[in-house]
Amino acid sequence: MKLWEKGIPTDQKIDAFTVGNDRELDLVLARYDAQSSIAHAQMLATVGLLTTDEAAQLTAALETIITDIKAGNFTIEDSFEDVHSKIEYLLTEKLGDTGKKIHTARSRNDQVLTDVQLYIKAELSVLKNQTKALFDLLITLSERHKNVLLPGYTHLQIAMPSSFGMWFSAYAETLIDDMTLLNAALKIADQNPLGSAAGYGSSFPINRTLTTKLLGFETLKYNSVAAQMSRGKSEKAVATAMAALASTLSKFAMDTCLYLSQNFNFIGLPAHLTTGSSIMPHKKNPDVFELIRGKCNIIQALPYELSLLTNNLPSGYHRDFQLLKQSLFPAIESLKSCLEILHFSLQDITVNSTILDDRKYDYLFTVDTLNEMVTQGVPFRDAYKRVAEQLENGTFTAPKATKHTHEGSINNLCLDKIVAKMEQEY
Amino acid sequence: MKLWEKGIPTDQKIDAFTVGNDRELDLVLARYDAQSSIAHAQMLATVGLLTTDEAAQLTAALETIITDIKAGNFTIEDSFEDVHSKIEYLLTEKLGDTGKKIHTARSRNDQVLTDVQLYIKAELSVLKNQTKALFDLLITLSERHKNVLLPGYTHLQIAMPSSFGMWFSAYAETLIDDMTLLNAALKIADQNPLGSAAGYGSSFPINRTLTTKLLGFETLKYNSVAAQMSRGKSEKAVATAMAALASTLSKFAMDTCLYLSQNFNFIGLPAHLTTGSSIMPHKKNPDVFELIRGKCNIIQALPYELSLLTNNLPSGYHRDFQLLKQSLFPAIESLKSCLEILHFSLQDITVNSTILDDRKYDYLFTVDTLNEMVTQGVPFRDAYKRVAEQLENGTFTAPKATKHTHEGSINNLCLDKIVAKMEQEY
Amino acid sequence: MKLWEKGIPTDQKIDAFTVGNDRELDLVLARYDAQSSIAHAQMLATVGLLTTDEAAQLTAALETIITDIKAGNFTIEDSFEDVHSKIEYLLTEKLGDTGKKIHTARSRNDQVLTDVQLYIKAELSVLKNQTKALFDLLITLSERHKNVLLPGYTHLQIAMPSSFGMWFSAYAETLIDDMTLLNAALKIADQNPLGSAAGYGSSFPINRTLTTKLLGFETLKYNSVAAQMSRGKSEKAVATAMAALASTLSKFAMDTCLYLSQNFNFIGLPAHLTTGSSIMPHKKNPDVFELIRGKCNIIQALPYELSLLTNNLPSGYHRDFQLLKQSLFPAIESLKSCLEILHFSLQDITVNSTILDDRKYDYLFTVDTLNEMVTQGVPFRDAYKRVAEQLENGTFTAPKATKHTHEGSINNLCLDKIVAKMEQEY
Amino acid sequence: MKLWEKGIPTDQKIDAFTVGNDRELDLVLARYDAQSSIAHAQMLATVGLLTTDEAAQLTAALETIITDIKAGNFTIEDSFEDVHSKIEYLLTEKLGDTGKKIHTARSRNDQVLTDVQLYIKAELSVLKNQTKALFDLLITLSERHKNVLLPGYTHLQIAMPSSFGMWFSAYAETLIDDMTLLNAALKIADQNPLGSAAGYGSSFPINRTLTTKLLGFETLKYNSVAAQMSRGKSEKAVATAMAALASTLSKFAMDTCLYLSQNFNFIGLPAHLTTGSSIMPHKKNPDVFELIRGKCNIIQALPYELSLLTNNLPSGYHRDFQLLKQSLFPAIESLKSCLEILHFSLQDITVNSTILDDRKYDYLFTVDTLNEMVTQGVPFRDAYKRVAEQLENGTFTAPKATKHTHEGSINNLCLDKIVAKMEQEY
Repeated sequence: MKLWEKGIPTDQKIDAFTVGNDRELDLVLARYDAQSSIAHAQMLATVGLLTTDEAAQLTAALETIITDIKAGNFTIEDSFEDVHSKIEYLLTEKLGDTGKKIHTARSRNDQVLTDVQLYIKAELSVLKNQTKALFDLLITLSERHKNVLLPGYTHLQIAMPSSFGMWFSAYAETLIDDMTLLNAALKIADQNPLGSAAGYGSSFPINRTLTTKLLGFETLKYNSVAAQMSRGKSEKAVATAMAALASTLSKFAMDTCLYLSQNFNFIGLPAHLTTGSSIMPHKKNPDVFELIRGKCNIIQALPYELSLLTNNLPSGYHRDFQLLKQSLFPAIESLKSCLEILHFSLQDITVNSTILDDRKYDYLFTVDTLNEMVTQGVPFRDAYKRVAEQLENGTFTAPKATKHTHEGSINNLCLDKIVAKMEQEY
Repeated sequence: MKLWEKGIPTDQKIDAFTVGNDRELDLVLARYDAQSSIAHAQMLATVGLLTTDEAAQLTAALETIITDIKAGNFTIEDSFEDVHSKIEYLLTEKLGDTGKKIHTARSRNDQVLTDVQLYIKAELSVLKNQTKALFDLLITLSERHKNVLLPGYTHLQIAMPSSFGMWFSAYAETLIDDMTLLNAALKIADQNPLGSAAGYGSSFPINRTLTTKLLGFETLKYNSVAAQMSRGKSEKAVATAMAALASTLSKFAMDTCLYLSQNFNFIGLPAHLTTGSSIMPHKKNPDVFELIRGKCNIIQALPYELSLLTNNLPSGYHRDFQLLKQSLFPAIESLKSCLEILHFSLQDITVNSTILDDRKYDYLFTVDTLNEMVTQGVPFRDAYKRVAEQLENGTFTAPKATKHTHEGSINNLCLDKIVAKMEQEY
Repeated sequence: MKLWEKGIPTDQKIDAFTVGNDRELDLVLARYDAQSSIAHAQMLATVGLLTTDEAAQLTAALETIITDIKAGNFTIEDSFEDVHSKIEYLLTEKLGDTGKKIHTARSRNDQVLTDVQLYIKAELSVLKNQTKALFDLLITLSERHKNVLLPGYTHLQIAMPSSFGMWFSAYAETLIDDMTLLNAALKIADQNPLGSAAGYGSSFPINRTLTTKLLGFETLKYNSVAAQMSRGKSEKAVATAMAALASTLSKFAMDTCLYLSQNFNFIGLPAHLTTGSSIMPHKKNPDVFELIRGKCNIIQALPYELSLLTNNLPSGYHRDFQLLKQSLFPAIESLKSCLEILHFSLQDITVNSTILDDRKYDYLFTVDTLNEMVTQGVPFRDAYKRVAEQLENGTFTAPKATKHTHEGSINNLCLDKIVAKMEQEY
Repeated sequence: MKLWEKGIPTDQKIDAFTVGNDRELDLVLARYDAQSSIAHAQMLATVGLLTTDEAAQLTAALETIITDIKAGNFTIEDSFEDVHSKIEYLLTEKLGDTGKKIHTARSRNDQVLTDVQLYIKAELSVLKNQTKALFDLLITLSERHKNVLLPGYTHLQIAMPSSFGMWFSAYAETLIDDMTLLNAALKIADQNPLGSAAGYGSSFPINRTLTTKLLGFETLKYNSVAAQMSRGKSEKAVATAMAALASTLSKFAMDTCLYLSQNFNFIGLPAHLTTGSSIMPHKKNPDVFELIRGKCNIIQALPYELSLLTNNLPSGYHRDFQLLKQSLFPAIESLKSCLEILHFSLQDITVNSTILDDRKYDYLFTVDTLNEMVTQGVPFRDAYKRVAEQLENGTFTAPKATKHTHEGSINNLCLDKIVAKMEQEY
């Protein structure tokens, strides 16, 4: 059943091409579609486009549909183009002409826009919670291993002393910036587009302020053309925040893969978190972290995919926008799974507490030694030359401990301050 | 003069490859470098690493340098690797050993990080102001032309009535979302990295809270490793916000180029805003808008460029990060020029008030007519069939006026609400 | 069943994360995996690692498996990690120890590499055939409509006369460049990686030249490390060629959507190729072409996705590479469907033969008129001024016909030359 | 002086915005512009649009201009919009009306197209030569160090024995694939667009076959609309080949940075190829290789930038295309400098011949040992278990030598075959 069919049969091949896997993707939107239909029906009653009784009947029928959706009993058969036509069909089947009236003063354009914004809001909320949980775990690990020193690298060269306390909480604090972008995306999504119809508004005397309140949106996307233009733009804002978060996870996974290499041997993973090789029996491969890295790198391509899809299209709806869903939805699922598996895996990570026993790491302490001299009154550039000479002579000895005191240093991690900053953002 | 030179001459070819156009880019950072050096010197005095007198001397010398920078009298000669070594040279030339002491407890890594964050904050502020000015102009144009109707398109097909009031303010309201992302980028940049040294902090008892206050940062990037990791990540957040803004401008430019085509003829531009052809004397080409579109599309590639540059690098500084500047700085200049020229050009735009006289636009009013029937009690799907018949019979007549009443519709633009939303974000 | 399992149960959650939808993707590779196993077995027999009888048994069993695959009777159950372990299981189940021996002197790394290269070769061949078929159709349409004039635009401004003959064959000739890139990708894929094992070769005395011949590869990827490095790089070459082809289709679709707009009205499509609107009964939306554009734009993001996935990984296998399949395979299916539906749709396209009756297109002929003057001896710049005056006076009259004679112009399309060029490339 | 000026002064701000740094970029095109003008003039004479004498005068004047360009005496002052108007000005200044006639039967559109194709052809030739030189050096290094073993990694885990012979020649063989793409880009660029005028051909009876021959193009881009459409598409093909080459260099640089780390210590660089740290005197940073990696990663963003710039633009010229030059030209310079500095740096690379003395690398030889057992008749899966047990018991002993014999393995590098393959492609 196609809403726009006027007696001319559409070739099946074209149907497959145009609908694609849309029915499957639309299942995700079903609860939001029913929810926004309820708000729409109740609003229509207040402006006289439905009777109170009609609105009540529609609301009851839609609530039944929501119950079915939650129970997994909702399907979109091939005879329906999308979730909107399926739900309208169910309403009409049950309520006759009253069912038909639900489509008054709206278009599938603002319906799907509203559904997607509600979906995005819900998913961003999940991503925020997962990010916060990962943050908490990283803070815990930082606190737990705060006294275990770790070589710090610049240019992949041994540089200065660091610690597992520094390393774990560095990623924690970085997640706060990603949270800032998730919040920005959320703010952008939190504007009601319902009532913008096909992108130019409606001649019906609808009350968009009311649906905004009923659907829990922070505000309206007032201008109907702007509401339509948010299609793609809102998804890009989400993709952008996801890419930032994914980039943090990917970098952490890269560190982990490196640190697990026998050439570093800084950390360990339990057997169930590594995989072997079909022909190399000694291997303990960090597949989970490689796949986190890989999946997160693919997620980082999402904003560019959406940009290429939407760029240089003049204003107004184009069917191209339908493809946004199939790019966005699986990427969100993928990012959630990366956050989940990373949280799961990190709980069992072990750290090597004897790393600095290896003499090659003595170099880490040249700067602290140099600073000590400066504190004792030697000008910086002169101290620099003296340490350089000691290194050349082989007379340099490493303290293998640090006495850093400033904010955000090895011996003063400021975890409480970092936690407070996250609380403010979260 | 290279700080790291130890008597071994570096091949000139390599110098050209590694320094590149960095000296030129660093000129932009000079004022921020001097400014953060003042804060650093004053802090060093409070923790006893400088005497009060030394700090005063350094401050005075740095203020002179800032004056020179503002007057355009500051240069970075080829004998200096970067702005940091040039300023340190000037201080040492003037103050001897006291000059050398400015580098105590910091590294070029946190210096450039601090400079870039200060630069980003200043530039984001300019972009925000320009965006607000463009917003204001679009609102003015929307108000001015609110009664001039315009065809609304979906699928590039004539669809529903729109208006210049709708069109101009749609872009205005969309700019609010871009402002949200600019603010997110600003928040991410507004964290003091000074004191993170080479990315692992310092053994000197510095006071980072003090430099945070002196430099006007909102908060610290506490963890020194996190501060180093913000290199690239902060630039990506800025690039991402710029890309969103650029995408809005590009879409507006695309609309403009289309509407200027003789096949639409919706708007007009004065002669000084169009260019002719060397062999087609009748042409009035919208080059300015095409270049806004093109430049803004290139800006949209910036986040991807930065992602490719920084992706899959393990934590810790890599020289690759030096290249961030040459990607970011010109893009910011380009976006500012697009905002400026668009604001300039829009002031002279004219709108065609007789567009709808063309009969092909009668179709725009089918939905309003259909809605009218529905209001009079005809079920939606039946009204739909009736209008379809009128269209086929040629009996359909267009009202050529709209009576839309809801929020964000042609006859109820809600400009005051949109302005209020922007005020809150700006 | 996991080949690398050593008694330690792997958490199910991790299994889902690491295997993902790999089994489904691997179904596509099954026939190539069996095929390359046959070549491997036969080679092993020639170097004495299998007996002739063992090789014959393995070959027969593998041929049965291929028959099952072609009949759709091959599945990869959840108890198998991938296609390789399933096929090895089938062989071992049937042939006992002989089945186990198939894995001698190879690794899953070179197996999947070989499978993917064979897959790519087959799919590129399909894409080439489809591209050639589309080319042929465009040439036919160009010839059919060669006398129908069309406005030519620059800057979206009416510029110079063009024709449907020009338009259709322009896209045909452009496809030749895409064919060049498809051929380059094919050449890159046509190098046998089998025998590179885990990326460093094998200590067995295998004969890679023989498997190269048996599998129909043009040459070997000799260096085993290079063979491993082709993972991702080969996919990127394919993605790049696909992106070029997709960009041509996307541009053609954009033209089509524009030309179908009532503001141009240059072409027509039969009802079964357009869709209507749920609330705008007059609409004839070119959804098929919008979706070709959208899908092809998404395909253009593929090379960047693969770049982000593989960039900055040091040499040697990483599990990230497993994700290449799930990016590449659906994109190939999508591009094939776009080529198919475009070919299908173009057969029914109609062209408007009265476009130039509209007076606004008179401007098209200013240059031809100007050239005519030049031919009669008027200096170019003077002729230019004279035509400009006629336009201002309203005295300009359009010939509405062209007498272009040079190669590749309206009246001399050189279709035979273009066809010959394609033949050479195809 | 603007060719299209008709007495109306263009605002200076707009001029700066529209011309940008085009004059500087156009200097690169000057020699090609003059060269194609000579071909154009000579062709015009053969079809009677110029007298033989006029063509001779123009040719002589243009040859003088080429001499000036080569001597560095050619400039494009701010009073000229571009190289085309400057050269036309010089001709008119010298030859009066004859100078004006050079613009007969062409447009700036096909002029710049032709210039850019000639430029691309020349630059691709340089890139090919540089790539071949790098290939030759890698082959030399492979041969020189063929007996020095190196750990081979998978998943960044110690896996199997490799060698410097394998490592260097792996990159050499990979460059052949990049050469294939450079050749494809060259083929696409090697088609004459001259005569396509503004993208729709000319009404003058020009002879494009003649200019094709005179300019040394392999063939014509016949269809004038196709010629115009190659704008951007040709640049993308070049960018794509450059990205592939850059990806190879970037990966090699990543390996190098890793191998230079004290945690690997596989290779060494002379002091003039590394840089120190301002506060860490022991550092030997591989800045050159980090910058090769970074610059090559930025180059990999180029195809995406060009895609965003050109995507979704309908056919016909748009001013956006002018921006192609400023994206492409500096990227080509950057890639050439990377190839040059890499070639320069590699000459001084040293390899560590005692890497495998470290016991942690014993694991490398498990597979060879396992294979030895298989050769002696032990079934693969059983041998696998036995080696696994030895590893657990600590009874495993490493041979520290390889006896690989197959094509492309440590002891049979097939360098002659790889060289022959490159010769065929180069």
